[in-house]
Amino acid sequence: MNNFAPRVFFMPESIFRHTHRVIYAECTVGNHVYYARYLDMLEAARGEFLRSLGRTALQWQEAGLAFPVIGVEISYKGFARYDDLLAIELWAAEMRGVQLNVGFRILNAGGALLAEGVTRHVCATTDEKPKRLPAELIEALRPFLRSGDIEANAGRR
Amino acid sequence: MNNFAPRVFFMPESIFRHTHRVIYAECTVGNHVYYARYLDMLEAARGEFLRSLGRTALQWQEAGLAFPVIGVEISYKGFARYDDLLAIELWAAEMRGVQLNVGFRILNAGGALLAEGVTRHVCATTDEKPKRLPAELIEALRPFLRSGDIEANAGRR
Amino acid sequence: MNNFAPRVFFMPESIFRHTHRVIYAECTVGNHVYYARYLDMLEAARGEFLRSLGRTALQWQEAGLAFPVIGVEISYKGFARYDDLLAIELWAAEMRGVQLNVGFRILNAGGALLAEGVTRHVCATTDEKPKRLPAELIEALRPFLRSGDIEANAGRR
Amino acid sequence: MNNFAPRVFFMPESIFRHTHRVIYAECTVGNHVYYARYLDMLEAARGEFLRSLGRTALQWQEAGLAFPVIGVEISYKGFARYDDLLAIELWAAEMRGVQLNVGFRILNAGGALLAEGVTRHVCATTDEKPKRLPAELIEALRPFLRSGDIEANAGRR
Repeated sequence: MNNFAPRVFFMPESIFRHTHRVIYAECTVGNHVYYARYLDMLEAARGEFLRSLGRTALQWQEAGLAFPVIGVEISYKGFARYDDLLAIELWAAEMRGVQLNVGFRILNAGGALLAEGVTRHVCATTDEKPKRLPAELIEALRPFLRSGDIEANAGRR
Repeated sequence: MNNFAPRVFFMPESIFRHTHRVIYAECTVGNHVYYARYLDMLEAARGEFLRSLGRTALQWQEAGLAFPVIGVEISYKGFARYDDLLAIELWAAEMRGVQLNVGFRILNAGGALLAEGVTRHVCATTDEKPKRLPAELIEALRPFLRSGDIEANAGRR
Repeated sequence: MNNFAPRVFFMPESIFRHTHRVIYAECTVGNHVYYARYLDMLEAARGEFLRSLGRTALQWQEAGLAFPVIGVEISYKGFARYDDLLAIELWAAEMRGVQLNVGFRILNAGGALLAEGVTRHVCATTDEKPKRLPAELIEALRPFLRSGDIEANAGRR
Repeated sequence: MNNFAPRVFFMPESIFRHTHRVIYAECTVGNHVYYARYLDMLEAARGEFLRSLGRTALQWQEAGLAFPVIGVEISYKGFARYDDLLAIELWAAEMRGVQLNVGFRILNAGGALLAEGVTRHVCATTDEKPKRLPAELIEALRPFLRSGDIEANAGRR
């Protein structure tokens, strides 16, 4: 979870940024976003991330592939409030074999970090068999691979 | 929406009662349940209602039938709060042809009425064609048909 | 619910339009949006509608006013699917005393009507006492009042 | 995440078990529970866990204390389906200073493991200052502390 520290060795890195306006539906008692709702926002952001990379989740699915979530690690650092405009930042934290880890940070308009973590995915056929990440997706994600992770992943693909 | 008034002509009537404990996930700013979440609770209650009548929604579906919602009318009368134990009361408000209307009231443990209304359903085959309500379901629901509605429906079936 | 029919007497009328991309979080078994999730979308749309009129819900609240939902009538006409880009259209269906009814239609990108109805609101102080709709809001909403409703409301304000 | 392996040294350990019936509201396309909804279920289960230990979350709050979630780690191992009756098992994975980690497993009626992980909490006053876990809660949770964790925590309290 330290991979949010600035990396000076490799640059520049791309980050995908999605914005989201908090509504009452997402808040709970005490005026803050309910802890599970961030996962909904992350899904919306990942959907737009895929779209921006050239194929929507739906198009991947029509091509026989899906990227189901097999794990989530999230740390809550602050409260998102009603009507906050949030930035959801995504990048590729790891790509290896059938695995794709997507790093994320969620910030409010003032730049305060509210949550950070990783969603872990596998590439699977629509009949639920694991399959290596398609080269097309790896290439499209490469600019979004964080440098530390590039190092970590070097030679694995 | 006046069909909650006491009916003295026909009695007694059966009401299905499901209980639900309010969690933070359902609340919003200001400590009350978000207006859409009552619809989730109603679905849970209808699922248990069907189960109690002899066949679950899943079993009806396996038999080729579903009862999708085609309309909702809901009036909010009070606030459900965190950790409230709610009673969700259901009955058949109308059964006619392909149509099934389910009346509901939601009360807290103190007996205060929080919401009331109706969900309107059609009976449909799993390939989405309308189909008359099965006699088995009509018979099972008959004790739960409110008297005023019995009158209204008399001779229609 | 017939107030969606074309009205030729008064024109043009303004409609507020909000767009929403359907995510998996909102879908259920069978690839369609769960019936309660439309209410979440409607809240998001109403929030943007208020913002566009000059004051956000939060700013109204800071000014001591809120517009809680006291009722919903919704008819489902078709299925919204995953990744559909929906248009949520809003207008003022009635403004009278403490009451504000907001009409809505939800359409997909192909123009198919998926849902329509009304959310009924009251104007209330933040300590929950009813209060007449503020003149500022009535003026801002006037261009969005549907003609049939203008007639119906004439002389009431 | 290996703390689910059988522990033979210390026994028996108590586990809190909450059951939950899956409804359509929680499912998504493809008939499985949406990944974020498990967090809602976990909150419901933790609420009942606290209640069973002698004080509800609401009562703790009235006493000036809350246990907000500061992190979640969850691994998805299988799919929960519509109408599944799930068992949500909870235990204390760590209690130290202001920190409380709650371990969990979610299983279906056939005993298949669907998800497991930990929610990390802090004890905080209602004005959001960290505070040591109350002795009353530690004592009540002690039978639910997993043995490996007992070892790990020994002497820390």
